[in-house]
Amino acid sequence: MLVVMAEGATGAQVEQVAERLIAMGFDVHRSTGAGRVILGAVGGNEQAQPALIELLEGVGEVVRITEPYKLASRRFRPEGTVVSIGDVRIGGDEVIVMAGPCSVESESQVRAAAAAVKRAGAKILRGGAFKPRSSPYSFQGLGEDGLRLLRWAADEQHLAVVSEVIDVSQVELLSRYADILQVGARNMQNFSLLRELGRARKPVLLKRGIAATLEEWLLSAEYLLAGGNPDVILCERGIRTFESYTRNTMDISAIPIVKKLSHLPIIADPSHGTGRRDKVAPMARAAVAAGADGLIIEVHCDPDHALSDGAQSLFPAQFDRLMAELRIIAPAIGRSICVEPVARRGWAR
Amino acid sequence: MLVVMAEGATGAQVEQVAERLIAMGFDVHRSTGAGRVILGAVGGNEQAQPALIELLEGVGEVVRITEPYKLASRRFRPEGTVVSIGDVRIGGDEVIVMAGPCSVESESQVRAAAAAVKRAGAKILRGGAFKPRSSPYSFQGLGEDGLRLLRWAADEQHLAVVSEVIDVSQVELLSRYADILQVGARNMQNFSLLRELGRARKPVLLKRGIAATLEEWLLSAEYLLAGGNPDVILCERGIRTFESYTRNTMDISAIPIVKKLSHLPIIADPSHGTGRRDKVAPMARAAVAAGADGLIIEVHCDPDHALSDGAQSLFPAQFDRLMAELRIIAPAIGRSICVEPVARRGWAR
Amino acid sequence: MLVVMAEGATGAQVEQVAERLIAMGFDVHRSTGAGRVILGAVGGNEQAQPALIELLEGVGEVVRITEPYKLASRRFRPEGTVVSIGDVRIGGDEVIVMAGPCSVESESQVRAAAAAVKRAGAKILRGGAFKPRSSPYSFQGLGEDGLRLLRWAADEQHLAVVSEVIDVSQVELLSRYADILQVGARNMQNFSLLRELGRARKPVLLKRGIAATLEEWLLSAEYLLAGGNPDVILCERGIRTFESYTRNTMDISAIPIVKKLSHLPIIADPSHGTGRRDKVAPMARAAVAAGADGLIIEVHCDPDHALSDGAQSLFPAQFDRLMAELRIIAPAIGRSICVEPVARRGWAR
Amino acid sequence: MLVVMAEGATGAQVEQVAERLIAMGFDVHRSTGAGRVILGAVGGNEQAQPALIELLEGVGEVVRITEPYKLASRRFRPEGTVVSIGDVRIGGDEVIVMAGPCSVESESQVRAAAAAVKRAGAKILRGGAFKPRSSPYSFQGLGEDGLRLLRWAADEQHLAVVSEVIDVSQVELLSRYADILQVGARNMQNFSLLRELGRARKPVLLKRGIAATLEEWLLSAEYLLAGGNPDVILCERGIRTFESYTRNTMDISAIPIVKKLSHLPIIADPSHGTGRRDKVAPMARAAVAAGADGLIIEVHCDPDHALSDGAQSLFPAQFDRLMAELRIIAPAIGRSICVEPVARRGWAR
Repeated sequence: MLVVMAEGATGAQVEQVAERLIAMGFDVHRSTGAGRVILGAVGGNEQAQPALIELLEGVGEVVRITEPYKLASRRFRPEGTVVSIGDVRIGGDEVIVMAGPCSVESESQVRAAAAAVKRAGAKILRGGAFKPRSSPYSFQGLGEDGLRLLRWAADEQHLAVVSEVIDVSQVELLSRYADILQVGARNMQNFSLLRELGRARKPVLLKRGIAATLEEWLLSAEYLLAGGNPDVILCERGIRTFESYTRNTMDISAIPIVKKLSHLPIIADPSHGTGRRDKVAPMARAAVAAGADGLIIEVHCDPDHALSDGAQSLFPAQFDRLMAELRIIAPAIGRSICVEPVARRGWAR
Repeated sequence: MLVVMAEGATGAQVEQVAERLIAMGFDVHRSTGAGRVILGAVGGNEQAQPALIELLEGVGEVVRITEPYKLASRRFRPEGTVVSIGDVRIGGDEVIVMAGPCSVESESQVRAAAAAVKRAGAKILRGGAFKPRSSPYSFQGLGEDGLRLLRWAADEQHLAVVSEVIDVSQVELLSRYADILQVGARNMQNFSLLRELGRARKPVLLKRGIAATLEEWLLSAEYLLAGGNPDVILCERGIRTFESYTRNTMDISAIPIVKKLSHLPIIADPSHGTGRRDKVAPMARAAVAAGADGLIIEVHCDPDHALSDGAQSLFPAQFDRLMAELRIIAPAIGRSICVEPVARRGWAR
Repeated sequence: MLVVMAEGATGAQVEQVAERLIAMGFDVHRSTGAGRVILGAVGGNEQAQPALIELLEGVGEVVRITEPYKLASRRFRPEGTVVSIGDVRIGGDEVIVMAGPCSVESESQVRAAAAAVKRAGAKILRGGAFKPRSSPYSFQGLGEDGLRLLRWAADEQHLAVVSEVIDVSQVELLSRYADILQVGARNMQNFSLLRELGRARKPVLLKRGIAATLEEWLLSAEYLLAGGNPDVILCERGIRTFESYTRNTMDISAIPIVKKLSHLPIIADPSHGTGRRDKVAPMARAAVAAGADGLIIEVHCDPDHALSDGAQSLFPAQFDRLMAELRIIAPAIGRSICVEPVARRGWAR
Repeated sequence: MLVVMAEGATGAQVEQVAERLIAMGFDVHRSTGAGRVILGAVGGNEQAQPALIELLEGVGEVVRITEPYKLASRRFRPEGTVVSIGDVRIGGDEVIVMAGPCSVESESQVRAAAAAVKRAGAKILRGGAFKPRSSPYSFQGLGEDGLRLLRWAADEQHLAVVSEVIDVSQVELLSRYADILQVGARNMQNFSLLRELGRARKPVLLKRGIAATLEEWLLSAEYLLAGGNPDVILCERGIRTFESYTRNTMDISAIPIVKKLSHLPIIADPSHGTGRRDKVAPMARAAVAAGADGLIIEVHCDPDHALSDGAQSLFPAQFDRLMAELRIIAPAIGRSICVEPVARRGWAR
């Protein structure tokens, strides 16, 4: 921490700040410049609160010089993390696409969706069984029945499964059915859930909160990593801004920034990021062009009758076309999207 | 729901929209104006999704004409709700002040704070025993020991108690010690928690999420009300904007707006709303001047050594002065702040 | 400027940064801490661009340690600036209220408004003659005729006049009729206009842009001050956030913050800050409670037929009631609002 | 306009609203549904202000059903506008790249930049001669000398010229040297300037304000179009959000949205959109992948010594690589970027 004293701060004020820093367990280095003193503070115990120093007389500014996250920092693993689910590698050269319906609704619905997304080249099937809804009066998901259908449909197509966990009490259940446990945007700072998932043996897909700074997002990843779970995938899904034409504003620039700050893979969710079917493809292309390690996209064989999020779900034919476009774009940045999906054997969950 | 067709929409397009609405269970009323058709849709089943209609050919705009919340609406109880805790009435003529330390740290700390805030006129003691922290490395609270100390200190001063519950599993525990269960900003859309609190027998203080619209906030209140808990108090505590000088931007205008939209009492938290001790008093005065039913303020007898949020905690003397200022302001809008706090007997929890 | 090198930065990287700083004209002080080097840079010529240093290899963070504004800083005039127009003093103990119609529409309209606001205690008459409108098809104001009517109505009531200047070419014209020249939110960074107004002999009311940071706002004030005009009044009028219930979100916290950062007086515009008549009074009270030096409020004797902004204009009776409320609130913070408006003689423009 | 009466609105309230609408010149159509009345209002004179209706007793909501812009609407020219400068067509199949230094600094600087960007495939040279700067103490540009150098360098390379006009008084001057007149983000609502440019005979590049909604942006374009200038190019350059890691947050989703709402071509400015050299290429790729008609990029042969914006300027080699990447991406959406730049003859300005 650096404490920049205001111009004209008195010697007594500098003394007081230094004493307070020492009481917080810091080693203090003093540097006197032209009309201004700067105190460098190294160390600090648990009670150290920079905000308190800011309020002292004569203090101009307090500058934190360490990122508050450590395990999530790029410096911790400069080569980057690859999260493996069977032979699917998220964070490697291939851009991985997860796709499927918003909610699992019925056997036929999820099987049709699984077949469609597999055919187009997706590697992972998405589908919600527990839905967090803003209104208490909306469809809340099929629960465990939904998970069973999702797993079955995925196995039939040799796809992995990602599904959302909305509560600590569901972690064990979800772990039985899904290969990746998704934390929704509204739960990004549900610290009880993060702590529990830190102990889980499954990779976690951590969505960014709609008003979360990049630092807060990486701190939530830190909860997972510090809890012992090394397999964290970040997912940008739109932030809230003054513009209300789309439900959210997708922050495409978060992709290259996070790749620099952190070693964790980052994917994009253009379905929630825009909320409108006709904007999903352009934003999916943009995310890949900006360097995303993957995408998660809502696809439904009959979106007009979907029980949730139909308006942002692609028809299978739209998804096919998008995948073809992405195969052209990926090589521009040295990435690929598996050209011909092959049925794989020996799938290991 | 109103569907405003685009200028120049064809008859076939209008037909298609009408059919789709009927399939969603709506009664459809057609109104043909100068070059433009409007369809009024009343009713609708559970599968009705306005966003789907928006994507149809020829549709200009879709307008929802019912608020998605019902029980939280002012229309549901035009006279306004008063939440009573013993003889403290939140939402009545008196502006109720809740105050105390951010975290319970020790017996002496919480007893001193309780005595100080009581003396100045607070009616309710605040204090956290379970702290949701952005970083996994920060102080996380004393847990049940903290609750016990908080209750004891409050009883000694004849104060009621408000404390935060951060997880479904704590609801029962908190209910044993606290008179009001607080839901923090990060949990405003933790729907599992809201559902559990809907079944609780204690009033709930529901903080606004840092990026929550007023509608989302009232929908979260709707979860509580729909669950059977009528005693909900709303709390504005600052929203996230582009301005970074303060931690958050307190949205004072939310106070008069919410009072019009909803019958629920609304209080303000200028401590979290600003994050800086020297801005707490001006914003507390502003909140009361704008019509808040109460305040919740962090007060600490030794904020420089507080284990959390010290920089935004008032010294007791600052709190005394603020209470004196508020007593001048409240009458401007026909409210009062109890001038001389009297020891009350027969306190009923 | 401080350059905090990343942990593990090499000696060569530190060297390169130091050389670059020296080339930019800085004196460089080196401070080596536990595993981290910090370079303090003092001075710097005109080509010094901190953003360039940020991109160098091994640099962790660059911290600017001087505010970019000087003349607008509180440090420049710790006692605070009072702007005087005749015997009206803005920034003194009295809270000054400016009021009147959005646009000047006719002689009878502006005379009635002037009489009404004078009676209630306003000291300055507001009214627009040139209206900047988002749409090219909206009413654009009466021009010089409007100014003439405004001046006349004000003189009749012994009021000063504030009116908006939207273009460099109007400065001279406005200066003939108005006592205070208003710069609208959309022109806050119209630097040609600011430069011209720096040379004007009239006080300037500088509104905050809807997305302007406090620093940008004070930098725009700096343009005026650096140009030679010492009489600058700041005006908070709402910022743009994700919340769309009101046209803007009034940033009441800007009032105490700006009063600490700068010596300039600051007033609030609750009419534009909310855009709705029924929210003007609560926000006006809040602004005064938070320490505003004044208010600017739209009042119209027949707002339902106003040519612009009728929905946010108060009826005279509402304005009377608001003034009465403000007279109760102001003393809470050691301020006053002239209790009985007296006709003053010898008014000097 | 639709007026949705509140549930339970009385007949008298409905009457009052209808009368008011009629007084504003509307034809009123009444539609009575299940417990709710809706009034459709068509027509309306200049005094019609929907916000006034909103305040009436018994009114639930007021819905505007026409976009306020007409000439800028896609409906006005469904096939899309192509702006031609010589043989460069903006809005056609080719993605047009404008590039060059932030400011013109010297003959050698601008000539070197022009040669570099031409070689890589740019068609238009950018460069500022009048710089709007937040601080009065920053470099403000070379003025007409800069324009002369810019034109000369462009002619030498057979490039067109785009340069910013910051004031009404410069329109004539800029028109002599530049092929496209740029309106900066801070001037997006400088209506005097827009009105003047509506009369100009040169295409206008209209940047989006940092907090402008899409509707406001299109309304500013409407000023230009209504003034008689059909050649308007829109430019997305980042909006202000709570995230402060980059100077702005580029709103890539604005690209496909604007292409649907309007017939005008839209380009992207990833240099200002990010403010950091290392983020320019990913965002440029994303913009093209999302469907942008062009890009405007800052390139400098010695960005470390640029007088402004050096940190966001690409080195020529970086620009070459980016252009190569874009040539791979463009075909994914049926666009091209001229593969081999050829010296053209007969360049017509």
